[in-house]
Amino acid sequence: MTDLPNAVEIREEGPREGFQIEPGPIAAARKAELIRALAATGLRHIQVCSFVSPKLVPGWADAEAVMAEVAPPPGVAFTALWFNARGLDRALAFRDRLTLFGSIAFAASEAFSRKNLNRDRAGQMAAMRALTATHQAAGVPVTRIGIQAAFGCNYMGDVPPALAVQAVADGLAIAAEAGAAITEVALADTMGWATPLRIERTIGAVRARWPDLPLALHLHDTRGLGIANAMAGLRLGVARFDTTVGGLGGCPFAGQPGAPGNICTEELALLCAEMGIETGIDLEALIAAGHLAEAIVGHPLPSELLRSGTLDAFRRRAA
Amino acid sequence: MTDLPNAVEIREEGPREGFQIEPGPIAAARKAELIRALAATGLRHIQVCSFVSPKLVPGWADAEAVMAEVAPPPGVAFTALWFNARGLDRALAFRDRLTLFGSIAFAASEAFSRKNLNRDRAGQMAAMRALTATHQAAGVPVTRIGIQAAFGCNYMGDVPPALAVQAVADGLAIAAEAGAAITEVALADTMGWATPLRIERTIGAVRARWPDLPLALHLHDTRGLGIANAMAGLRLGVARFDTTVGGLGGCPFAGQPGAPGNICTEELALLCAEMGIETGIDLEALIAAGHLAEAIVGHPLPSELLRSGTLDAFRRRAA
Repeated sequence: MTDLPNAVEIREEGPREGFQIEPGPIAAARKAELIRALAATGLRHIQVCSFVSPKLVPGWADAEAVMAEVAPPPGVAFTALWFNARGLDRALAFRDRLTLFGSIAFAASEAFSRKNLNRDRAGQMAAMRALTATHQAAGVPVTRIGIQAAFGCNYMGDVPPALAVQAVADGLAIAAEAGAAITEVALADTMGWATPLRIERTIGAVRARWPDLPLALHLHDTRGLGIANAMAGLRLGVARFDTTVGGLGGCPFAGQPGAPGNICTEELALLCAEMGIETGIDLEALIAAGHLAEAIVGHPLPSELLRSGTLDAFRRRAA
Repeated sequence: MTDLPNAVEIREEGPREGFQIEPGPIAAARKAELIRALAATGLRHIQVCSFVSPKLVPGWADAEAVMAEVAPPPGVAFTALWFNARGLDRALAFRDRLTLFGSIAFAASEAFSRKNLNRDRAGQMAAMRALTATHQAAGVPVTRIGIQAAFGCNYMGDVPPALAVQAVADGLAIAAEAGAAITEVALADTMGWATPLRIERTIGAVRARWPDLPLALHLHDTRGLGIANAMAGLRLGVARFDTTVGGLGGCPFAGQPGAPGNICTEELALLCAEMGIETGIDLEALIAAGHLAEAIVGHPLPSELLRSGTLDAFRRRAA
């Protein structure tokens, strides 16, 4: 147990992940309402929107309208997602209220890269080199490497840890060429293939090569194992997790319509709180934000904790 | 990882837990249909019904009608639940098709015992002595000790491991007086208070005193941490788990209407299969049984895996 971190950074991605997949339409004002509620829970990092093609992701066609209505309170960073120079341009318009950084993204599975981005490994290398240069030209630091399908892939099947290591190496090579200082590698279980043992093996393989590289986990709960995988990460000292309130989001990839999305912010926050790991989150406020998210999307979200509430509520009644 | 068991016994309790809490009514023939489907999945232990008061649990008023329609296939044990001599009498009528054994039940939290059974510790000791004698008089072996609220309690709050140890000691004392050979102690997280660390501490405390006593875990997923708690048990070598297909069931205790019930059979089976732990379960058949359960109760169940399917299906497509 000695590797459990003392504090964990939980980064909320519910607005971005959720509103991109909900059939909608959902008014910009309601999206902003959820973002403001989340910003008052003690969460310190919130991914608030996506600057992506309105044709591909109509749910975020109104990113500008949402951004016009929100601003981060002191101590809270608002972040956004984009995949190309056009998206970066849109994000730059809000640099007064967004914490901007560039990511180098690779899939550990080339089959995923081909299906999702229509790029082979060489094509993705070229695209990431170009995007890194674009970020740097705009004065946006490139600090993060993100590895999709790090534990398995609906198109390839099992992903050996060596392929995740290779994807990290590719990202680090591009960063080194460009003189970018990488401060984080995020391993994503994009399609829900991880188990606690796979988390251990893949993290072990990455750490064996880069012992000092801070790791983050972006876990999906596609098959109900998400929180066990998060626990495996915590046991290894991983202290950064991407999550979504209520489990907002889903899985747009092959053959899993209706499959759940990311692990729930409030369930990871509860797990941490009950094990004495600091998150800075007010769990009651976060659960209220989860209920607000359900009201906004108009259906129940996968979170169990939204149904049952905190243990502290029972402790107070029992005392 | 060396303590992970090679094989795990997953005991299905979906029919008993689920049909006792669903508003219903559900026809006996449909309950029997689910039981037959479960019996064809490779599950070796299925708790098929409850012989309890029809006034308190109207969902199992038809236990006899259901039992008349089912019989265990070779290699499968059907079990049932009862709490008193009247229930045992009803079960004895089906001794040709039920595997009968007696349990000594204690709550680690006396507050739970008072609220749920209206008995203090001495009252529960007396009741369990009498029930043990009743079982033995009927030729039914008393082999199991079940500890409710072993990790926490909605009425008491946190439950120190020492109280779980005391409850096990009380059960063992009654068994010893009666000459009953206990073959299992089941620790139940009745109201969803466990975390992986609490699992470790409580199991550690019980094992420190009785190193050779086989342990089982009966986990509820009230707050979304169930599968992480199961994983903690697996890491400690626990090899017997009570689960429900689809997550059938719920939590009838204070202040948690709508809270989910037991951990999902298919999600634990997937976790085991993906880590190389043998369960004997055909996961595709079990998922089909989960969909049948949803059709029978008429609403979606909490299971994520019912939405997403197995990884083997994707492996076959990718190959």
